[in-house]
Amino acid sequence: MPWSNRFSKVARDIKTSEIRELLKLLADPEILSFAGGIPDPALFPLDAVKRIEAEIADDDACHRAALQYAPTEGYVPLRQWVADRAAAPGFTFEPGDVLITNGAQQGLTLLAGALIDEGDTIAVAEPSYLGALQVFKTKGPRFLTVETDADGLTPDALEVVLRQGPRFLYTIPDFQNPGGMTLSAERRRRVVELAHRHGVPVLEDTAYRALYYDAPPPPTLLETEVRFLGEQGRAEAWRENGLVVQLGTASKTLAPSLRIGWTVAPQPLIEKLVVLKQADDLNTSSLNQMLAHGLATTILDEHVVTLRRAYGERRDAMVEALYRNLPNDATFTAPKGGMFCWVTLPEGIDTAELLKLAVAEAKIAFVPGAAFHANGGGANTLRMSFSTCSPEDIRSGVEKLCALVRRQLA
Amino acid sequence: MPWSNRFSKVARDIKTSEIRELLKLLADPEILSFAGGIPDPALFPLDAVKRIEAEIADDDACHRAALQYAPTEGYVPLRQWVADRAAAPGFTFEPGDVLITNGAQQGLTLLAGALIDEGDTIAVAEPSYLGALQVFKTKGPRFLTVETDADGLTPDALEVVLRQGPRFLYTIPDFQNPGGMTLSAERRRRVVELAHRHGVPVLEDTAYRALYYDAPPPPTLLETEVRFLGEQGRAEAWRENGLVVQLGTASKTLAPSLRIGWTVAPQPLIEKLVVLKQADDLNTSSLNQMLAHGLATTILDEHVVTLRRAYGERRDAMVEALYRNLPNDATFTAPKGGMFCWVTLPEGIDTAELLKLAVAEAKIAFVPGAAFHANGGGANTLRMSFSTCSPEDIRSGVEKLCALVRRQLA
Repeated sequence: MPWSNRFSKVARDIKTSEIRELLKLLADPEILSFAGGIPDPALFPLDAVKRIEAEIADDDACHRAALQYAPTEGYVPLRQWVADRAAAPGFTFEPGDVLITNGAQQGLTLLAGALIDEGDTIAVAEPSYLGALQVFKTKGPRFLTVETDADGLTPDALEVVLRQGPRFLYTIPDFQNPGGMTLSAERRRRVVELAHRHGVPVLEDTAYRALYYDAPPPPTLLETEVRFLGEQGRAEAWRENGLVVQLGTASKTLAPSLRIGWTVAPQPLIEKLVVLKQADDLNTSSLNQMLAHGLATTILDEHVVTLRRAYGERRDAMVEALYRNLPNDATFTAPKGGMFCWVTLPEGIDTAELLKLAVAEAKIAFVPGAAFHANGGGANTLRMSFSTCSPEDIRSGVEKLCALVRRQLA
Repeated sequence: MPWSNRFSKVARDIKTSEIRELLKLLADPEILSFAGGIPDPALFPLDAVKRIEAEIADDDACHRAALQYAPTEGYVPLRQWVADRAAAPGFTFEPGDVLITNGAQQGLTLLAGALIDEGDTIAVAEPSYLGALQVFKTKGPRFLTVETDADGLTPDALEVVLRQGPRFLYTIPDFQNPGGMTLSAERRRRVVELAHRHGVPVLEDTAYRALYYDAPPPPTLLETEVRFLGEQGRAEAWRENGLVVQLGTASKTLAPSLRIGWTVAPQPLIEKLVVLKQADDLNTSSLNQMLAHGLATTILDEHVVTLRRAYGERRDAMVEALYRNLPNDATFTAPKGGMFCWVTLPEGIDTAELLKLAVAEAKIAFVPGAAFHANGGGANTLRMSFSTCSPEDIRSGVEKLCALVRRQLA
C-alpha cells in the first residue's frame, strides 16, 4: 500500500502554502522580494540578544532553569509582562490570563483545535492572513467572509455574518496582513457590540500593532471589550464571559526565531488551550521565553522606535512609488503601519501569472492575492511587503513591476 | 452562552495529564520525586551551551540567521547530523529524510494528525508513554493494546493486533517509558517482518536510546527494517515504501528546553508532516537548532558517557532498593537504561491512593500506572524515575515507600 493511501483526511486535504514556497525563492540573492511578511534581519537587536544570553548563562541556577522542562503555561515573568501590556481601564490582567505559545501561529493552532468541529462555520475578513486560513482549514470548517474597506471590516457585512452564528470571527485590526488597513475606533466598538449581541468570540491578532508609522492605532478590541463591559459595571466578567481573545507575538518586533507568541483569553478557554498545548509539544523553550522577557523589559520600547523609523521610510517609498507608477485603474492601500501594501489590479489580470513574469523578467517577487481569500477569488490582487528592502530598491522595483503590469494591460 | 458550550469535541474530551499535575508538585522542594521523566539539571552541559551561544552570537551573519524565520523542515546541518546517526548498512539517510520538531512530542502530534481519522484503530504497547496516548486521543482513535513482558512487545500478541490492520503501531523499543524493558534483537526483527506482512507502519520512539548503563541496545527498528529490505535487494525502497518512522529528541541527552526533536520518515510522509508543521507553528527556533547542532557535534558523545555513569549509579541504587524492600508478591523491571523502574503491586492496591498517602506521610512522589494504560486497568502499577535523585535519597525513599506498601497490604 503506498503512503498516499495511509493519510488521514486532514493530511490528504492539506496543501503547501504559497508563503512556504516563496520563502524558498528568497534564497536567491538576485531576487528583489516584496513577498515574505518578515522583519529585516539587519534590524535585529543583536547586541541586546547577546547580552541577555550571557546574563542567563552567567547565572547557573537561571541557566539550568532555562534548559529544563517547564510548566506548559509559560514563564511567569513573561506572562506578567504580557498581562501588563494588555491592561485596560478598570481591569487588571494577570499571568493566569496568558498562555505562551510558539509564535502566534501556535496560538491559532490551539484555538482552531479548541473551537472548530468539522463543518462548523467561522468568520474571517476578506482578505485574511493565509497562515490563519491554512491552520483553520485543517479542521474542515466552512468560511463566512466579511467584506473590508479602507477602515477594515465593514459593520453591515459583519452583522450579516455574525447573525449566522459562526464559532468565531478572526481579525487583524491593526495594519492588516495582507490588506494594510486599520479598523477604526468606531468600528472596533461596533465589532465588540455585535460580538456580544450575537454571542460570537473574536480572535484579535495584534501581530503588527507596535509597528505604526504615523500615530498609534485605536485601542485594541480586547481593551474596547473591557471598557464595554466596564460601562455595564461588569469589567470583571471578562475573565469568565469575555468574548475577545487576543494573540500577540515577538516575531515582528524582536526576532521570529525566538518563536515566542502569546494568547490572552478568558479563564475557561485558557484552561483548555493549556491542555491542548501540553499534548501538542509540552512547553515552549524556557531559554527563548527568558530571552524574550529580557529583551521586552529592557530594549523593546527603544528598539521599536528604530523599527518605526526604518520601516516607515520604506512604507513611504512604496506608497509613493505605487502612487506614481500604478495604472489609473489599479488601487492600493496606503497603510499606517505594518509591512504591507495591498494592490488591486483591473479584473482580468492574473497575479499568479504576473508573478512568474516578474520573477523571470524583472527578478521581483510578491505574493499573489488569491491565497488570502478563504473561498476563492482575488486573482487580480497582490500583497507587496516593504519590510526588507531599501527605499531605493523599493522605488526601482515598483517601477519595474508597474511597467510589467502596464504591458499586461496593453 | 458559557465557554464550556463553545468547545470543540476534542476540547471537551481532552483531560489534563497526571504528568502535568505532577510537574507542579515538583515545585515543593521538600518532596522527593520519583515522578517526572526528566533529566537532572545538575548534569546539563552549561559550559558548552554558553560557549556555543557565544560562538553563534559572535558571528553577526550567523546570529541574524539564528533569529530569522526559516524553512519548516529545519536547519540543514542538524538534519544532516540526524541522518548520519540513523545510518544503516546499504542505505544512506539524507537531510531530506528528516524533519526537525519541537521535541519528539510535536513529532507525535504531526504523525497523529497525518495518520489518524476519528474511529481508526491504532496499536500501542501496554503500558505506553502517556504523552503519546494523550496526543493520539485528541484524534479520537480506538486503541488496540499489545501485551509486553521483560523483552518488550510479545510477538504473538502483536501478530493478533497487527492482523486487525491498525493505522500504526507506536513503540519505544529501548528502556521503555514507563515499563523500563527493552525489545530484544530477535523481536525487533519479528516486529519488522510482521509490520511488512500486515502493511502496518511502526512509529519507533528512541527517546532513551543513548542512555544505556550496561551494553548498547540492539539495532533500532529503522536499521532492522533497512537490513530487512536490503536482504531482498531493495534497501533503497525504504525512502518510498519503508514502514518504520523514527522519532528522536535532544531532551534526554542535552536539554529539554531546547525543544529539539526529529522525525525520520519515508518521503511521502515527510512531505505531509512538513506541511502540517508549517500550519502548526511555521518553524522550530533556528537559534535552538543551531545550539543543538553545536552541542551534538562537539560534546554530546563525551557528555552521554557522563550521563550514563551518573544515571547508571542511580539505576543500580533503585533496583537494589526495590529488590531489598518490595514485598515478595510485587514485581518490578530492572531496566538496562533510561530513567524508569516499573513496579507491579498485588491486585487490590490502588497506586493513586498510595500516592496521596506517600506525599502526605513520606513526602515521596511517583506516577500511578493507570494513566499509561490506553484502555484502562493498571491501578496496581506505578512508575518510579531514578533520574533526578541521589543514590542515597533513592535508597531511603524506596525504603519508606515500600514500608507504606507493606502497611497497605497488611
